[in-house]
Amino acid sequence: MPLTPEQQAEIDAQRATPRPTLRAVSEGMEAHLYKASEVLDHGFVRVIDYMGDDNAIVQAARVSYGAGTKHVSNDEGLIRYLMRHWHSTPFEMCEIKLHVKLPVFVARQWIRHRTANVNEYSARYSILDREFYIPQPDALAAQSTVNNQGRGEVLTGAEAERVLEILKSDAGRSYDHYEEMLSQDGQQGLARELARMNLPANIYTQWYWKVDLHNLFHFLRLRADAHAQYEIRVYADAICEMVKDWVPFAYAAFEDYRMGGVTLSSKAVDCLKRMLKGEDVTQETSGMSKGEWREFQAAIA
Amino acid sequence: MPLTPEQQAEIDAQRATPRPTLRAVSEGMEAHLYKASEVLDHGFVRVIDYMGDDNAIVQAARVSYGAGTKHVSNDEGLIRYLMRHWHSTPFEMCEIKLHVKLPVFVARQWIRHRTANVNEYSARYSILDREFYIPQPDALAAQSTVNNQGRGEVLTGAEAERVLEILKSDAGRSYDHYEEMLSQDGQQGLARELARMNLPANIYTQWYWKVDLHNLFHFLRLRADAHAQYEIRVYADAICEMVKDWVPFAYAAFEDYRMGGVTLSSKAVDCLKRMLKGEDVTQETSGMSKGEWREFQAAIA
Amino acid sequence: MPLTPEQQAEIDAQRATPRPTLRAVSEGMEAHLYKASEVLDHGFVRVIDYMGDDNAIVQAARVSYGAGTKHVSNDEGLIRYLMRHWHSTPFEMCEIKLHVKLPVFVARQWIRHRTANVNEYSARYSILDREFYIPQPDALAAQSTVNNQGRGEVLTGAEAERVLEILKSDAGRSYDHYEEMLSQDGQQGLARELARMNLPANIYTQWYWKVDLHNLFHFLRLRADAHAQYEIRVYADAICEMVKDWVPFAYAAFEDYRMGGVTLSSKAVDCLKRMLKGEDVTQETSGMSKGEWREFQAAIA
Amino acid sequence: MPLTPEQQAEIDAQRATPRPTLRAVSEGMEAHLYKASEVLDHGFVRVIDYMGDDNAIVQAARVSYGAGTKHVSNDEGLIRYLMRHWHSTPFEMCEIKLHVKLPVFVARQWIRHRTANVNEYSARYSILDREFYIPQPDALAAQSTVNNQGRGEVLTGAEAERVLEILKSDAGRSYDHYEEMLSQDGQQGLARELARMNLPANIYTQWYWKVDLHNLFHFLRLRADAHAQYEIRVYADAICEMVKDWVPFAYAAFEDYRMGGVTLSSKAVDCLKRMLKGEDVTQETSGMSKGEWREFQAAIA
Repeated sequence: MPLTPEQQAEIDAQRATPRPTLRAVSEGMEAHLYKASEVLDHGFVRVIDYMGDDNAIVQAARVSYGAGTKHVSNDEGLIRYLMRHWHSTPFEMCEIKLHVKLPVFVARQWIRHRTANVNEYSARYSILDREFYIPQPDALAAQSTVNNQGRGEVLTGAEAERVLEILKSDAGRSYDHYEEMLSQDGQQGLARELARMNLPANIYTQWYWKVDLHNLFHFLRLRADAHAQYEIRVYADAICEMVKDWVPFAYAAFEDYRMGGVTLSSKAVDCLKRMLKGEDVTQETSGMSKGEWREFQAAIA
Repeated sequence: MPLTPEQQAEIDAQRATPRPTLRAVSEGMEAHLYKASEVLDHGFVRVIDYMGDDNAIVQAARVSYGAGTKHVSNDEGLIRYLMRHWHSTPFEMCEIKLHVKLPVFVARQWIRHRTANVNEYSARYSILDREFYIPQPDALAAQSTVNNQGRGEVLTGAEAERVLEILKSDAGRSYDHYEEMLSQDGQQGLARELARMNLPANIYTQWYWKVDLHNLFHFLRLRADAHAQYEIRVYADAICEMVKDWVPFAYAAFEDYRMGGVTLSSKAVDCLKRMLKGEDVTQETSGMSKGEWREFQAAIA
Repeated sequence: MPLTPEQQAEIDAQRATPRPTLRAVSEGMEAHLYKASEVLDHGFVRVIDYMGDDNAIVQAARVSYGAGTKHVSNDEGLIRYLMRHWHSTPFEMCEIKLHVKLPVFVARQWIRHRTANVNEYSARYSILDREFYIPQPDALAAQSTVNNQGRGEVLTGAEAERVLEILKSDAGRSYDHYEEMLSQDGQQGLARELARMNLPANIYTQWYWKVDLHNLFHFLRLRADAHAQYEIRVYADAICEMVKDWVPFAYAAFEDYRMGGVTLSSKAVDCLKRMLKGEDVTQETSGMSKGEWREFQAAIA
Repeated sequence: MPLTPEQQAEIDAQRATPRPTLRAVSEGMEAHLYKASEVLDHGFVRVIDYMGDDNAIVQAARVSYGAGTKHVSNDEGLIRYLMRHWHSTPFEMCEIKLHVKLPVFVARQWIRHRTANVNEYSARYSILDREFYIPQPDALAAQSTVNNQGRGEVLTGAEAERVLEILKSDAGRSYDHYEEMLSQDGQQGLARELARMNLPANIYTQWYWKVDLHNLFHFLRLRADAHAQYEIRVYADAICEMVKDWVPFAYAAFEDYRMGGVTLSSKAVDCLKRMLKGEDVTQETSGMSKGEWREFQAAIA
């Protein structure tokens, strides 16, 4: 249970007092505001603030394209057109601010998305809590034998038990030692900025993360993808649920053109044309490498 | 008068319908929303949307610095501390979206601030309006004789008249020719993306511009500065009036530490220390070049 | 002829004096260094400096992916893999600095690519030259009747003559007036930062533009595309010729996966699968709008 | 000793084969290329590539400011002028690529500088080495009692011994368990992307980091500062030594105006003016808070 009673009380208070605004309001998003969507064993994502809605995207596009957009009859059609033609600037006109609690090794992947604003909890200033990510049994996977960066089957039996025992006991011991080094009881106490180095990467941190919708879609395309590491994908999935309610037209277009979309190389397009004409194309006659051919087959089979 | 009756009616309608929200609300900014602040002869700035307020800055800082910020007794003190110590990330947690109508030569300076989102009116898609910036008599300045990028005295008499006559007649003729080339009356009509090349840089364009508060302060520091070109400074000044009402603590800290602040080199600090001890320091004994000494004198005199 | 004898002499001097370096050297790019590739009537692109080569991409990827990349047998295969799987960071490890002379209306499109470094000639500081883009007859196109932002047939006869006459005489007159307003002969002379506003958007400016290879590819994909405006496409085409010699493997992968690549929506992929199974799919049974269907047909026909 | 004989041999080979180039060459930087500057117990920084030199900054400025820069008589003076007046774009025209080996908790601070390109070693793909940062005795500091994010006295005696013992034994045990979980000897072996979560933040990682000179100076101002954490400051210091030899004029200006510079608020400037006139100003009459006054005193005393 990631939320303390104090946190839940604070959320309840924030949700109890609506105020009037003249700004664009997304009803779907208002329902999510401040509520924590629980992720992994101690993590969460919650929306702290947002700017804009589907209409804000349309409004910005109409500034840019003026009369040029009039022939697209409705807002949904225009949003689909923008997404299909990679007109990204109107999507940048929406912004979201999230509060995320997440393991450090997930945070390290996440932060590689540079076009965002971040305020992370600082372990130089303050002491981290005793909270570590320990995978559920069904997330305890073996190294993939075919993919260098992937997972294979779920571990079971004695091996699974050994792994969980190691993760739990090492986390506990590290945190005991962290407290012991920090302690000013009968000793000076090590600087916080040094003591934190003993903590493993499954400890939880938290941050405020603010990003525009275009860059958020880029994040979601990579991190809600089947090839993303499970532990970041569950955060991306939780965010998808919020975005779907925030900007339903934009999210639907994103699902169709990005998440479910496929990019084919010019070689692949050539093969496709030949196949549609009835030719029997094989890897040997495709001009593609074995890897490319395998991925092409997976995309269209 | 930059606003048409239609635009004014649209603004009135937008302002007439407050809706409830659970988000942070800045009362000061709500009063500005959608209203056009008139700038130059046909330009304006108006706030389309905003995210956050002074409290959002504090809230983000407290996530980062945790217990480390508790000793700063109040929100204003914390915001001043953050500004003084260049802790910029909490200020990035506020965002503003503006609708700006401005001459193209001003837009060209403005766009050099890269960390922002922009949707500009496209003259490839649509036809520009017949609106040109013609300076007021008191803005019609001679080239500075001391500063390569500055202005000197205001032009008067026959010279001023000649300049205004040129600007007006060239603008008018260019626009006539623009329409003539575009016309499909008895001819094919030149492509819009080509015809626009005949229009001078004082024609008005417009855009939506979205930026976070940290980057907005950077823009304002450079563009509301006395050395900025007058025609962009008036836009920066108009935005300052909005920001002052949006985030009053942050704006006051910005004024004190950035707009009114002075950066001294290590050489200048050395001189200052000697001067405070009663020594009579001259340019020759300062170690500074003439230019640096002149600027140093201006800063502390 | 865009280059003055002085400029040509400077280029010759720069090219005459090779110096030893321990850095990665791209022979293909050395052959381009400093040489101006002429574009439009007075413009050019020339490479001022570069960092890295194909091997630098591979080297960076091997830092990231370590043993994970060993099974990819060669550099070209690895680069193709990176491009196909959108692993963009290794491509960011190469950098290029260009000197570009271009009409202002082209510069205004170009600058929208924000992730780059720019030093543009300042008309506040200095006086612009009398050089304007006047289209060649075969670039003088009518407005497209089907595409709001496109061109149709080439104008001919009296209409073409009238357009060229307008463009030439307006440019000339604007520049005469620019000089007249700036003149300090018997008058004070208008400030340069004001006088420039009278100049039309086909006047030439110039800048240094520095960008990493990943962002350059993004620029080239959009601007060397058939839908880009002709006047920026010719610059993109000229840059393509340089990049091809600089990083031949990366450029070939870019051509195959990006320039010649096609992105299909999930709806389009579904249709494709049905078509490959022999089903006769029409727009009505495709689930796509007419516009999407038309684009889909164009992609695979 | 951070470098293996293999690495040293590779460096020697790279340094043995100069090649001719027509690009700008910085002799000072050539002497650093590829050589590892050792930092902390297992870390290093080494220059992999660079673009530009002092002259490249001047050259870019002269494109921008044209005739406006002619009155500045020499390159050093112009560079100092640019630095003093915050004209940052010419400094962006130089670029550097570093190979850095550093503890993860240092990497986490470093990566917050977003305007850079990074390729980090991936522990999803590959196995990390058994190398941990263990502080030297004189870096083993107590928590500061006055500064929430600072260090106080150096720990000694039994407390220091206990801390070192904890850091060493926890690191060793974590790594043993990491290997044990990964092992495929008689078991499936945990996925690398999961096993890494057990490793503490003092384990070493490595990356290629590419940044322009303007953003590098920003990094160095914050991280070579006395208030930066010691473990990142030593990296910044090592980089300073390289930059000093790469762009000596720019580095000297950076030292004078940024590292050694002081920013005063408008309140502080007012006090200073009063003090220079002989007035005895105290905190009570200064209008500053106690904290501001203390910092002001420290700056000018």
